[in-house]
Amino acid sequence: MLKVIAEDFIKPQAVETVLPLYRALVAATKREPLCIAYDLYVDEKDPGHFIFIEEWPDRAALDAHCASEHFRRLVPMINQHQRKEPTFIMMNGFS
Amino acid sequence: MLKVIAEDFIKPQAVETVLPLYRALVAATKREPLCIAYDLYVDEKDPGHFIFIEEWPDRAALDAHCASEHFRRLVPMINQHQRKEPTFIMMNGFS
Repeated sequence: MLKVIAEDFIKPQAVETVLPLYRALVAATKREPLCIAYDLYVDEKDPGHFIFIEEWPDRAALDAHCASEHFRRLVPMINQHQRKEPTFIMMNGFS
Repeated sequence: MLKVIAEDFIKPQAVETVLPLYRALVAATKREPLCIAYDLYVDEKDPGHFIFIEEWPDRAALDAHCASEHFRRLVPMINQHQRKEPTFIMMNGFS
């Protein structure tokens, strides 16, 4: 099991622009056969700070997600509006 | 629903010391009646970077968690070993 947190930091004036892009990305990703969880949240204190909490069976499934048509089409459109570099943490469960 | 990500950054030489403290904190918190989720993960690239992904029904439940005996006893013991300030994000679901 691979857990992922991916954080985007969108310019305030672009938040309305990215919302439909995120909606499309979440809907298409949830339809990927290997996707266990792909949930998007927004920082209570910062409406441009978007946080994905993801779960994949393994690294190959995450790589397939990043190579998907919807990812390769939508993520660059979202990234045009970042105000700083997105962050990405891959995690193992604590036991 | 309130989703929380809390991140700790533990000094490398203290990782073994904090593991039983985290185990106790997770076990006691999961027994709190209002706790929906309280899962701990470790950054694949940094064994001192611990990430809680939490879910609470509301802010009052989170406040009760932070006021609990186990939180007030264990978190200061963990925090002695932080190498930088812990971070904390409260999030709303994206819709």
